[in-house]
Amino acid sequence: MLGKMLENVREKTPLVHNITNYVTVNDCANILLACGGSPIMSDDIGEVEEITSVCGGLNINIGTLNERTIRSMLAAGKKANELGHPVILDLVGAGASALRTNTAKKLLEEVRFSVIRGNISEIKTLALGGGTTKGVDADVADKVTDETLDSVIAFAKAFSEKTGAVIVITGATDIVADSQKAYVIKNGVPTMSQITGSGCMLTAMTAAYITANPQQLLEAAAAAVCAMGLCGEKAEAVRKEQNAGNSSFRNYLIDEVYKLDGRMLEEGARYEIC
Amino acid sequence: MLGKMLENVREKTPLVHNITNYVTVNDCANILLACGGSPIMSDDIGEVEEITSVCGGLNINIGTLNERTIRSMLAAGKKANELGHPVILDLVGAGASALRTNTAKKLLEEVRFSVIRGNISEIKTLALGGGTTKGVDADVADKVTDETLDSVIAFAKAFSEKTGAVIVITGATDIVADSQKAYVIKNGVPTMSQITGSGCMLTAMTAAYITANPQQLLEAAAAAVCAMGLCGEKAEAVRKEQNAGNSSFRNYLIDEVYKLDGRMLEEGARYEIC
Amino acid sequence: MLGKMLENVREKTPLVHNITNYVTVNDCANILLACGGSPIMSDDIGEVEEITSVCGGLNINIGTLNERTIRSMLAAGKKANELGHPVILDLVGAGASALRTNTAKKLLEEVRFSVIRGNISEIKTLALGGGTTKGVDADVADKVTDETLDSVIAFAKAFSEKTGAVIVITGATDIVADSQKAYVIKNGVPTMSQITGSGCMLTAMTAAYITANPQQLLEAAAAAVCAMGLCGEKAEAVRKEQNAGNSSFRNYLIDEVYKLDGRMLEEGARYEIC
Repeated sequence: MLGKMLENVREKTPLVHNITNYVTVNDCANILLACGGSPIMSDDIGEVEEITSVCGGLNINIGTLNERTIRSMLAAGKKANELGHPVILDLVGAGASALRTNTAKKLLEEVRFSVIRGNISEIKTLALGGGTTKGVDADVADKVTDETLDSVIAFAKAFSEKTGAVIVITGATDIVADSQKAYVIKNGVPTMSQITGSGCMLTAMTAAYITANPQQLLEAAAAAVCAMGLCGEKAEAVRKEQNAGNSSFRNYLIDEVYKLDGRMLEEGARYEIC
Repeated sequence: MLGKMLENVREKTPLVHNITNYVTVNDCANILLACGGSPIMSDDIGEVEEITSVCGGLNINIGTLNERTIRSMLAAGKKANELGHPVILDLVGAGASALRTNTAKKLLEEVRFSVIRGNISEIKTLALGGGTTKGVDADVADKVTDETLDSVIAFAKAFSEKTGAVIVITGATDIVADSQKAYVIKNGVPTMSQITGSGCMLTAMTAAYITANPQQLLEAAAAAVCAMGLCGEKAEAVRKEQNAGNSSFRNYLIDEVYKLDGRMLEEGARYEIC
Repeated sequence: MLGKMLENVREKTPLVHNITNYVTVNDCANILLACGGSPIMSDDIGEVEEITSVCGGLNINIGTLNERTIRSMLAAGKKANELGHPVILDLVGAGASALRTNTAKKLLEEVRFSVIRGNISEIKTLALGGGTTKGVDADVADKVTDETLDSVIAFAKAFSEKTGAVIVITGATDIVADSQKAYVIKNGVPTMSQITGSGCMLTAMTAAYITANPQQLLEAAAAAVCAMGLCGEKAEAVRKEQNAGNSSFRNYLIDEVYKLDGRMLEEGARYEIC
């Protein structure tokens, strides 16, 4: 099932419009190509509606946002909604500033999202109207543990119910939930948090997965999250073998996404459905 | 001959001003350094004329353009013309939005280009006033095949005649043409289209080549295109040997440009002159 | 002593706010993670004061500056001063345009810096009101040699006296000086100047070092400079062994920063105190 999601990406080469931060944009483009999608980046109000119209899906990421790009996010999001394109929101840094929090809220009010991704602090900020985001990392107080897992799952389902979006909460354990069902995913390695952009890259890749599988948003998002974590595990094995560091790890991670096929994903995905 | 073009770059260390997109800008800077040039990136209207004045050549790339940078492209382009500096235009995404198409047209009206590079759809958009660009990739309908090669060469020569620029059309087969003569280049590997920025990087490198060889624009551009394709072939061999993916391929590609010398280019360039 | 500076970074995970250029921003984020810090990038006037407030230190880099980001640099710098956060300035390209030179001067007038970094031409531009910066590289006329070393050290100490900042002049020989004391550092390899961003990355890393060691700015900056140069040496050994080029070198460099510990730094640092 998850493998089929991946294969649909490779088969359909979904074209994804990205309005994203300038920190990790190159990695997002390369991981989209690695997974079988095709990226286009564009953030000017003068073209975003037109660009999103020629694409199949839209990825909005609020890192390094500014007044100019916020307008473009809203315009592109509405256009994508009109056209019935899947739209994903990455909450990077929500809670770290009022501008990010308010932009995220405004986007949620004005745009219908298929998927919303963030760490637990970012998602809480958006869902509960406040949070304790420490920069772009989740706050320790928000950490998902065995003790809190059930309540986080219930929280994710409720937030999905409220927004209509699949909710993706990433961390040591990842949760992918719609209002009825949650994937609790154990793939991944800590080194993924020692590079910039593993969250942004996951969101970009998820955009390709949901664009290629618009009728199965939950499964598509879960497949993307498992794929990313699994490729992180594979990349970590290479990193250790090569005695390399985080920069090479980033390359290995994208490389593993490039090499991953449906069978490998089926075999390597580690999740429970709750 | 082509080898000499490369050697002139290494000898003269041409300083190239780049107004380019934020997706592949780091790769463009590193490939400029790899080939023997020196990059400076600057896009604010308050400094672009001054920056271009201290450089030897100018690279304008319309990816992720916006109203602010469009003004800077025009101002820098005119200044470079005044100073007699080679100027190159990368048409990334022309045809995908009216903003990109119109900006490309306006640039062509107001700035004299030494070289214009794009895929066949982008070049057709600019030359014929319309096109079928699919995002930033060439449309299948526009594909250059053995059957269409002669007509594409004639088209490129005619567009060079009209614009006064050397025309570089990249794809599985690359065409580099002035009004009289065309290089048909067979170097390169498909993996080059599985990373972001191989086009942008080629344009940046070509900027260094034409800046170091201003009296031989056609040969300089052809040398850069052969060099890029040849390095792609070498990088692909490394990628396969290492069982790596597209992200490492990007590094290997720039690495090979770093290692390439004139003799290697002479031996590896595969082209016909038509 | 220098090793302790490094260990404090790993222990405290300083959160660093970066207002930096879009060319090397990804490398800056990854090297901050590699050395044990945590990066956040943000440049909109609507959030920079708030973002810098949740961080421990601020890194201002004037590459690819524009009117919008200049305002943000000033606002964030003043806020960081209010809060007593260490602030570092990277002078990339000062002297190459009036906009960069004047922005650097204005920043120096309105913001109190803990550390100022540049090549010799950039620092002279700021200190003497004029310079001979060639793009983003130091001018040959400004080169620090055995003959000029003493006068450059005196110049650095005097500029530190005047500004209250630790002055970091990087080149084949690096000088890190306050008004009383200078580290003359011999670590490093020429390949570091064949990638984009080795200066920017050093400044970002120095931001983490001074944020984690606010009472020992001189030693912290010297430790960061030694660490960067030493990691360059280690990366160069890997590059040669792998027969790689500048792009892989960039990854190896960040990898070595990731792997460096206090003992390795103590053993590998090569400097004299003058």
